[in-house]
Amino acid sequence: MLIILTGLPAVGKTTFAKNLAKELSNYDVDVIVLGSDLIRESFPRWKEEYEEFIRVSTLKLIEMAIKKYWVIVDDTNYYNSMRRDLIKICPDNYAIIYLKAPIEEILKRNEERGKKVPDKVIKEMSLKFDEPGKKYSWDKPFLVVDTTKEINYKEIVKSLLLYSKDKKEEKKERSKVSKKDEIDKRTRKIVGEIIKRGLEKERIKELLQLRKEFIKSLKHDDVDKALKEFKDLLNKHNFSL
Amino acid sequence: MLIILTGLPAVGKTTFAKNLAKELSNYDVDVIVLGSDLIRESFPRWKEEYEEFIRVSTLKLIEMAIKKYWVIVDDTNYYNSMRRDLIKICPDNYAIIYLKAPIEEILKRNEERGKKVPDKVIKEMSLKFDEPGKKYSWDKPFLVVDTTKEINYKEIVKSLLLYSKDKKEEKKERSKVSKKDEIDKRTRKIVGEIIKRGLEKERIKELLQLRKEFIKSLKHDDVDKALKEFKDLLNKHNFSL
Repeated sequence: MLIILTGLPAVGKTTFAKNLAKELSNYDVDVIVLGSDLIRESFPRWKEEYEEFIRVSTLKLIEMAIKKYWVIVDDTNYYNSMRRDLIKICPDNYAIIYLKAPIEEILKRNEERGKKVPDKVIKEMSLKFDEPGKKYSWDKPFLVVDTTKEINYKEIVKSLLLYSKDKKEEKKERSKVSKKDEIDKRTRKIVGEIIKRGLEKERIKELLQLRKEFIKSLKHDDVDKALKEFKDLLNKHNFSL
Repeated sequence: MLIILTGLPAVGKTTFAKNLAKELSNYDVDVIVLGSDLIRESFPRWKEEYEEFIRVSTLKLIEMAIKKYWVIVDDTNYYNSMRRDLIKICPDNYAIIYLKAPIEEILKRNEERGKKVPDKVIKEMSLKFDEPGKKYSWDKPFLVVDTTKEINYKEIVKSLLLYSKDKKEEKKERSKVSKKDEIDKRTRKIVGEIIKRGLEKERIKELLQLRKEFIKSLKHDDVDKALKEFKDLLNKHNFSL
């Protein structure tokens, strides 16, 4: 599962990410915390021109990690376009967590940690910030966390685990449906080809009925197996393929 | 240029890497420090099974970065196979820097930083450590640094800049040679085809002489341009292509 944090600088994303990761690992979830600061802070000094490389390489890292682990993205993600780029990596199983605090509290925390980001920048970001879910339904936060209050990580982990399970089942369900569709389509095609080669009216009726009953009584969704079974059935009824 | 650090844990690689990067950036070199700890420490806890992902994703990061920047690899790289994997990323322009200190000093430093790595592991590594350049010439260190002595970063940067310039020129030279070879081969082929289609003995002699002189007097190494010039020359001498 991809957990996308979003919130202003100094709101407490990194602390939240670390605590959440720790708690997830207590539940045997293999999880990694990734964010663009990892790359950004590997340069001895910052230049605007580095930002494109930072963006692309961070996305690449997340893409590689999500194949094996849960990923918590520790980044501001203050435009919905940033969140969209992340969601594209794992569209079937993601959760946006929106971290909030009053701007005065954020500026105070920024002060405490030595103003890595100038107050002016935070204030500007706060104005430009796209509230998650305001415009798009895919952008709706799974959770909004007030970082000035005590955070119950155990509860969050439990609800994430349930949510992820649901999402996985949804995906399985979707794949089941698409397999049933596939079997329907391909048996239809086989029948069509037999009819095209010429058949009596009564036999056509029999063939169509055969397929209808076959689909109705099918108990599994293994496409290859189903096609084999269908062909065997046709052979048994003397329809030549 | 790819700068590959190698040395035992706690020998002072990270400090060295940061100072070197800073000094390089004073000389307007865009440089990034990358190492497997970046990924390793993004997991809330360590598991042996994470190591393959850590290895592959770190190499991928370096591969992406080296296209745009100088890269300092801040890692133990204690097997020559690890150094070889890195060199493969940038075989034409790399420098191995071997950081050394007496084992007692290393264990003392390890103590000071809270024994992130157990002493036992460092001692084992020290026994398994493949001294760079002992076995392979490609593995020879560009520089051996004693981290118990004062380090002159300015000097190191200057010699790296010179070395990198040399390497770039070597590469350019090699590419020039291979272009000359290409022109030689392709004009030879053109001549061969003309002769195959039938030509008097005298005219063959003339044709071969023409090519020989053309190659000798060629002042550039632009393959396409050279071929065009050669064809024009043949036309001028009434050889039909």
